[in-house]
Amino acid sequence: MINITSNMSWQDIANAAQTHLADTLSCVEPRIPDPPADLPLNVISLPAKLLSTDIVRITESSTEDLLHKLATGRLTSKQVVNAFLQRASLASKLVNCIAELLPQKALERATELDKYYARHGKPMGPLHGLPISVKEHIAMKGQDLNAGFVSWVGNVAPDDGLILKLLWNAGCVFYARTTEPQTLMHLETSSNIYGVTVNPYNTKLTSGGSSGGEGALLGIRGSCLGIGTDIGGSIRSPAANQGLFGLRPSSYRLPLEGFAATMLGAEHIVPVVGPLSTSLEGVKIFMKALIDQKPWLYEPMLVPMPWKNSVTEGTLLRTNSNTRTLRIGILRDDAIVKPHPPILRAMDNLLAKLQSNPNITTVDFPPYAHDEAWRIISSLYFADGASEEQEAMAASSEPLRPLSEFILKENKNVKTLSVPEVWKLTCERDAYRAAYARHWNSVGTDLSGPESGEAVQVNSLEKESEMVDVILCPVGPGCAPPLDCARYWGYTSQWNLLDYPALVFPTGLACNAGDEVEKGYVPRNEDDRYNYELYDPKTYVDAPISLQLVGRRYEDEKLIEALELITEVAGLPFKEPAAGSTKPRL
Amino acid sequence: MINITSNMSWQDIANAAQTHLADTLSCVEPRIPDPPADLPLNVISLPAKLLSTDIVRITESSTEDLLHKLATGRLTSKQVVNAFLQRASLASKLVNCIAELLPQKALERATELDKYYARHGKPMGPLHGLPISVKEHIAMKGQDLNAGFVSWVGNVAPDDGLILKLLWNAGCVFYARTTEPQTLMHLETSSNIYGVTVNPYNTKLTSGGSSGGEGALLGIRGSCLGIGTDIGGSIRSPAANQGLFGLRPSSYRLPLEGFAATMLGAEHIVPVVGPLSTSLEGVKIFMKALIDQKPWLYEPMLVPMPWKNSVTEGTLLRTNSNTRTLRIGILRDDAIVKPHPPILRAMDNLLAKLQSNPNITTVDFPPYAHDEAWRIISSLYFADGASEEQEAMAASSEPLRPLSEFILKENKNVKTLSVPEVWKLTCERDAYRAAYARHWNSVGTDLSGPESGEAVQVNSLEKESEMVDVILCPVGPGCAPPLDCARYWGYTSQWNLLDYPALVFPTGLACNAGDEVEKGYVPRNEDDRYNYELYDPKTYVDAPISLQLVGRRYEDEKLIEALELITEVAGLPFKEPAAGSTKPRL
Repeated sequence: MINITSNMSWQDIANAAQTHLADTLSCVEPRIPDPPADLPLNVISLPAKLLSTDIVRITESSTEDLLHKLATGRLTSKQVVNAFLQRASLASKLVNCIAELLPQKALERATELDKYYARHGKPMGPLHGLPISVKEHIAMKGQDLNAGFVSWVGNVAPDDGLILKLLWNAGCVFYARTTEPQTLMHLETSSNIYGVTVNPYNTKLTSGGSSGGEGALLGIRGSCLGIGTDIGGSIRSPAANQGLFGLRPSSYRLPLEGFAATMLGAEHIVPVVGPLSTSLEGVKIFMKALIDQKPWLYEPMLVPMPWKNSVTEGTLLRTNSNTRTLRIGILRDDAIVKPHPPILRAMDNLLAKLQSNPNITTVDFPPYAHDEAWRIISSLYFADGASEEQEAMAASSEPLRPLSEFILKENKNVKTLSVPEVWKLTCERDAYRAAYARHWNSVGTDLSGPESGEAVQVNSLEKESEMVDVILCPVGPGCAPPLDCARYWGYTSQWNLLDYPALVFPTGLACNAGDEVEKGYVPRNEDDRYNYELYDPKTYVDAPISLQLVGRRYEDEKLIEALELITEVAGLPFKEPAAGSTKPRL
Repeated sequence: MINITSNMSWQDIANAAQTHLADTLSCVEPRIPDPPADLPLNVISLPAKLLSTDIVRITESSTEDLLHKLATGRLTSKQVVNAFLQRASLASKLVNCIAELLPQKALERATELDKYYARHGKPMGPLHGLPISVKEHIAMKGQDLNAGFVSWVGNVAPDDGLILKLLWNAGCVFYARTTEPQTLMHLETSSNIYGVTVNPYNTKLTSGGSSGGEGALLGIRGSCLGIGTDIGGSIRSPAANQGLFGLRPSSYRLPLEGFAATMLGAEHIVPVVGPLSTSLEGVKIFMKALIDQKPWLYEPMLVPMPWKNSVTEGTLLRTNSNTRTLRIGILRDDAIVKPHPPILRAMDNLLAKLQSNPNITTVDFPPYAHDEAWRIISSLYFADGASEEQEAMAASSEPLRPLSEFILKENKNVKTLSVPEVWKLTCERDAYRAAYARHWNSVGTDLSGPESGEAVQVNSLEKESEMVDVILCPVGPGCAPPLDCARYWGYTSQWNLLDYPALVFPTGLACNAGDEVEKGYVPRNEDDRYNYELYDPKTYVDAPISLQLVGRRYEDEKLIEALELITEVAGLPFKEPAAGSTKPRL
């Protein structure tokens, strides 16, 4: 419990929250020694030096390895939970990614699970004994629930969010709650409660956001599987910045019940919850464990769509004489903001591997009016003129963080709309979605595109096998940017507007001095200029380079299967570990 | 084309629309003689007397019979279309259900289809040659699109709505456009353009609405399959009033693109489109023909959920030693407005048949706070304070019809809401939906109900086989009411709020003098009193008695399969034809 009284200043409240955090860290035993005062820029390899071999071995295992060992009795849940508590408390000191640890509750739960295993000789569920980290604004019974607003500190969740109940049913352990930014609407993690969460690969860069506590914690292996949320890139930006796997599922597949946030009830652009993991298998295990429990029986907004298994329920990708073939649309650049050289290098490297494979076809996927998409989504985000956010901040007199200022004040599309204005924008959203669907249908086929207004052509179903399966594109206009500079959302928010599932993955490459500035480049617009001027290879040293795969709405399973094939064909991750980095693993 | 000039009064515009209608009727050859001036109250058997045997035989066939004969060359499309044009033009004169006929276009299309058949020896698609009637506000290229507002008369649709394109692809013929009420928000069909559409079984009663033109036309067999829309009961009320099958599918399964209506873009309560048919098989054929064309490839708001076939894709209902078992929740009364005696008689008759069958279990399904559901949905319907409707009516100075007055003015929940107020109501809607889901889970099981707040119980999935499959309930608080009296929406709007699929079916029974008023009944509230006082067995003579089956969200296929089983087990329709009525058929 964070100790709050009614007449505290926002600084007092923040101090109380930080004191509480320190208290929870101090309960971890054996206590983690303070890291050296003179930290390097890249702290990614410090835990392996400061922690015991056993702890390092456990915490650097993948979700699937740990689950296998837990299910076969080769590790106890207590061992695993202890190891992650140790590493998470060190992570907190290195990159400031923790809102609170839950050592006592977690070890109690682990003990209970171990007893269950001893008694029954089998795991309690598919996530038996696994520690899962959780973004702070997901309600956890009896714990603080502040969503990054100082004035909300002291609100205690009356119940667990539905997603936590289901994961609990599956046998997992909650041990860490992670940081998030003020308003939850930054692609970074900076609040007046906990300050700034930084990137373990380069602490001058951001961990991303808004699930940036998750990103930094998983990046430094203080967690192997965590829960984030995403309304404009908030799972994918932290996944990309730390070289992790992160899935923004299609909407209404995973439960949102019980979350704290502003704008609850707004349906024009809906947030989604999803996993970040150090392995692709971790993403899949998470999705399946939840959807197999039929969450739609409890949260009826969810679509009752079982999790499809590519092996037993038919191949999701098309088969061609027993070989799976995959058609990948290549979207290198959204035509608004040109990605930095490292991103384009990674795209090119991957493309070269894919093009040489007979089971894969790549086609150019031109962007379609991504500026229009940003106009619509940024107008719909804060349809109340951001009044809820302003109120929540004004209530404690906390100042706006720089990126709150950017998204709420500098964003010219924030207006107090009337209900009919929201309806009109919603119609524009739907028209854009329909146009983009026609665009998708037309790429690589001879069907007519978005401008024709010809929604259905008589032969369109016959052309389905020629349509692109997935789009390969950047996750952002660069790797993890320097602090307070993540101002371009277009590469992620595009897919929120369209509600397409999007999966971020590490290429194994990292930024280095060889990625030179493009000399003489003439920026296309102000956003492009800002991004161009942000780039200098020295700034981004060691930043992991990630990419994004995008699927059609509700083709989440196919998207994962496509990445499995790409991984296999291209030999991902590429072997070019950055100095001092832990190699991303699949 | 309706001839409109800029300075016409609303009466002039209405006259122009009616003149256009008369012109389209007069193009039907051979011309239908005017019906006798002295019409009986029940006109249902007149067409069989006034039309040729061939026409009667064709028009009284079911959708599936016609499609079979068309696909095997035993009937030409021209024969079928001609027959329905004849009967529809007679229907227009008897019950005023037609906005316009399309004899020329329909016969051209039929000729083209017959040529195709002659050339290829096979049908063009699953709906080859079948005439389908269409509610007026569904855009049809080059035709008027007024949605029941006088001021909108003269708007010409630039393109077909997506649903029409897909049905066209499947080989059908459009030949009739049907009436709808002012605002589309009545459970009757009364406008200042075409006047009132009445019930062919008893012309003092309403055909229902808002798809009441469809209801009356199908009731009198001027169509065997038609398209309606439903946001509060608008498919189900006309289906029930005329003893038809009508499905309100789950949202986002069938395309809505291209419809004319107010409040486009409002997502809090979404309209759906769906079929009315003289047979249950017709409903199924319609759904399958559309969904098999993957409409989500063109309208990406739709959920990519293939149409499940109970035979080839596994039984949707649970199997128990090779016998299908069905658990039916019985909701006789919503605890707000008590249904009239004929409805309760039909419920009891059906229940008696079901209870004696070993493959069916019936359990009492108590209503859960249906008054709260009405408060939420009626507050969300007109979140702009009905300003679009008011403007559309004010633009021509047309007066409000009595039921527009009722739903827009007397409805105390019509308010001009702010965006945050809509969000708050949307949260209330979702909380109600979640509570109702818990209620459903709890009926017949020992799971805790809506009040417990315990969304998930560890054993809930194990209890799934004990949960109710479908709910059997009334479609309204009585049969087709007298004109201007359909003021209680609760029995249908309840399932719109919950977005549960709902299927109306005829019992084969009709109102008669034996259904006496319940003496000494003390009404529960004003709505209940209004409904109680509306009842007198003499008023409702010959009105068909229909019932409603409701499924869980997205279990549309299971719902149809459940009705197939119920039909078989109970021997529906019951044999008690009303005097002079055509027997409802399955």
